[in-house]
Amino acid sequence: MMKKVLKFGGTSVGTIERIQHVAKIIKRDYDAGNKIIVVVSAMAGQTNDLIQLSKSIANDFSKRELDVLLSTGEQITCALLAGALKKININAQSWLNWQIPILTEGDHTNSRIVNMNVSKINNFINEGVAVVPGFQGISKNGEITTIGRGGSDASAVAFAKLFNADSCEIYTDVDGVFSSDPNKIPVAKKIDRISYDEMLELSSLGAKVIQSSAVQTAMMYNIPLQVRSTFTDRKGTTIFDHENIDYSKSVTGVAYSKNDAKITLIGVEDKPGIAANIFEPLNKAQINVDMVIQNISSDQKTTDITFTIKRDDLKMTKDILNNNQKIKYKNITHNDKVAKVSIVGAGMVSTPGVTYKMFKALADDKINILAISTSEIKLSVIIDEENTLNAVKKLHTIFELD
Amino acid sequence: MMKKVLKFGGTSVGTIERIQHVAKIIKRDYDAGNKIIVVVSAMAGQTNDLIQLSKSIANDFSKRELDVLLSTGEQITCALLAGALKKININAQSWLNWQIPILTEGDHTNSRIVNMNVSKINNFINEGVAVVPGFQGISKNGEITTIGRGGSDASAVAFAKLFNADSCEIYTDVDGVFSSDPNKIPVAKKIDRISYDEMLELSSLGAKVIQSSAVQTAMMYNIPLQVRSTFTDRKGTTIFDHENIDYSKSVTGVAYSKNDAKITLIGVEDKPGIAANIFEPLNKAQINVDMVIQNISSDQKTTDITFTIKRDDLKMTKDILNNNQKIKYKNITHNDKVAKVSIVGAGMVSTPGVTYKMFKALADDKINILAISTSEIKLSVIIDEENTLNAVKKLHTIFELD
Repeated sequence: MMKKVLKFGGTSVGTIERIQHVAKIIKRDYDAGNKIIVVVSAMAGQTNDLIQLSKSIANDFSKRELDVLLSTGEQITCALLAGALKKININAQSWLNWQIPILTEGDHTNSRIVNMNVSKINNFINEGVAVVPGFQGISKNGEITTIGRGGSDASAVAFAKLFNADSCEIYTDVDGVFSSDPNKIPVAKKIDRISYDEMLELSSLGAKVIQSSAVQTAMMYNIPLQVRSTFTDRKGTTIFDHENIDYSKSVTGVAYSKNDAKITLIGVEDKPGIAANIFEPLNKAQINVDMVIQNISSDQKTTDITFTIKRDDLKMTKDILNNNQKIKYKNITHNDKVAKVSIVGAGMVSTPGVTYKMFKALADDKINILAISTSEIKLSVIIDEENTLNAVKKLHTIFELD
Repeated sequence: MMKKVLKFGGTSVGTIERIQHVAKIIKRDYDAGNKIIVVVSAMAGQTNDLIQLSKSIANDFSKRELDVLLSTGEQITCALLAGALKKININAQSWLNWQIPILTEGDHTNSRIVNMNVSKINNFINEGVAVVPGFQGISKNGEITTIGRGGSDASAVAFAKLFNADSCEIYTDVDGVFSSDPNKIPVAKKIDRISYDEMLELSSLGAKVIQSSAVQTAMMYNIPLQVRSTFTDRKGTTIFDHENIDYSKSVTGVAYSKNDAKITLIGVEDKPGIAANIFEPLNKAQINVDMVIQNISSDQKTTDITFTIKRDDLKMTKDILNNNQKIKYKNITHNDKVAKVSIVGAGMVSTPGVTYKMFKALADDKINILAISTSEIKLSVIIDEENTLNAVKKLHTIFELD
């Protein structure tokens, strides 16, 4: 007998037939004697439809009312799934954000779950399946809040943590976590086991299978996560603690993102506080700066600073750099046709030559590296966008991920 | 300065453009210095769509979960309308069933509002417009409940009563209450003032402009109702107390329903308890029996009982009458091509000859009367369905409603 949190994403509950299929998956686990809390997303497309409705009233639609609006999506799935479970003779009940309650802190549309009352649901799951909404909660003033797109993963982990669950299973529309995007890189393979760290790097690099903040919370409280498919019986990926991982492979996955732009400020005065002057106004404008590389310039009095941003933010970034009196430089260049390719692996740090191997592989294919950034378990390079898929495939082969 | 409850039905908030239009109507009243509570229905079609979803899982979908499901409809309208009001610079806020809370008693899908906490909203409407959901509430156990189709009218009246509002305005897609259905009877005219009693008879006879239980509550607490159009500036109909009505006209309106069937049991033993034996099993099967007429039979030991039901219930009714051992009769006949036509007027009781005038008018047009039923302010006849519109037009002319 285990206490389990099962989370089903929007595609998994996207139609009535799929909701009925999900009910059967839950029944299998319930009939095996487990205590079950099910966290659901809104049916696929519904959240976008509701956002569209709000935008047709106002682009700056009230965030408080947006939360009231969007939270209906998961409420609908809760009711339908609880009804589908009852239809196959499982005692099931929906519990809404205010009925539990799920307490959150933070701003509307961007809250985080801080606590919930577990006693009523703990009683109920002795005799039935509790179905609860992902993505939402209530503030201490009793207002509906939501926790950001993809927040149902974070909800599932919060439930697993606060209910002391033995496992947290994220059911989704793919078989698990892959060494790279299997739709684009046919040689990509499913990863059976991956550490929290590696998963975090992979998700922050664009692997969308599970939300980063959910992985962070799971890591902090050491909650093993399982990512698996709603539509097949395959085993999925287990995300867990470093120490339980076999590091015979130095690299676990290759990630890439193609919506980047690179900006270089040439001839920036090389004195303390300069970087802060540059990045403070960007931060204020909510422009997310990703990689930052600083080189000494030839004259040794000035320096060149290169950084990458989302391509959509390029125009605003340039406007800020051009109009801010505090930011002084000789010249500015940009390239909006770049991509970031990264290799990720907790075993990298103990395996010599990974860096060299990567650079050589790219050089062999005449792929020019425009910038480099490293961390303990990740190595990212910026390259011309047109070379992305070639680079990813090559790195897959070199690091034996095929 | 008045305290007003404004209620907008599903058609009135059926699209974003209409919600924006409704916001302007509210602004006009708010700018005039009134304190305003707005009760909204789900956007037109949404409740039906949700019911369809539930039915595709199970025809006997859990009523508890159906309430959870359906209540999202009004929640969506609340959020969108509050957002639309804010967009035009009105301080507005949505309040959900559990936030107020709106307390109900009774079964799921069929509850009634018994109380609510008025203090928070009373404070809020000093500085802004409160937008609240119709059709729903919560039980004393904190479960979501709904109060039946069309229940938003009853919600509006409950708000008007509990908040001691000066007026309750029902905005809908017609100009007000008509002497008959204006889509079918072109000579039908809008009624400016009508008593609660008359309105009750008209609604129970098929005039769908406002829900009967809402009128009942309004009558009980003497809350004047205004029915008016969201889409025109016309004056609408005021529904209020008997005593304030001018009875120069004996008949206020002509109603009809076309989905009736008539059953006659011939030769039923004429002794106490017989009628109960017949109607108890029908009641159990939730078959709504409308008119009942009993005649003495020629042999004086047996009697004939005629009653009308909804046409959809005909088969089930006949099955029950055929298979129930307690119900004894010589013969059974039925006619499923009948309609009920009624004249309604609080002035009827004090105006001699109304009954005669009606029967003569129908006889003049060779319309055969199959059954008759009367009340203090209503006179209904069952006729062949094909004569319905002719009868209604004729009665309109005879009673000078054109």
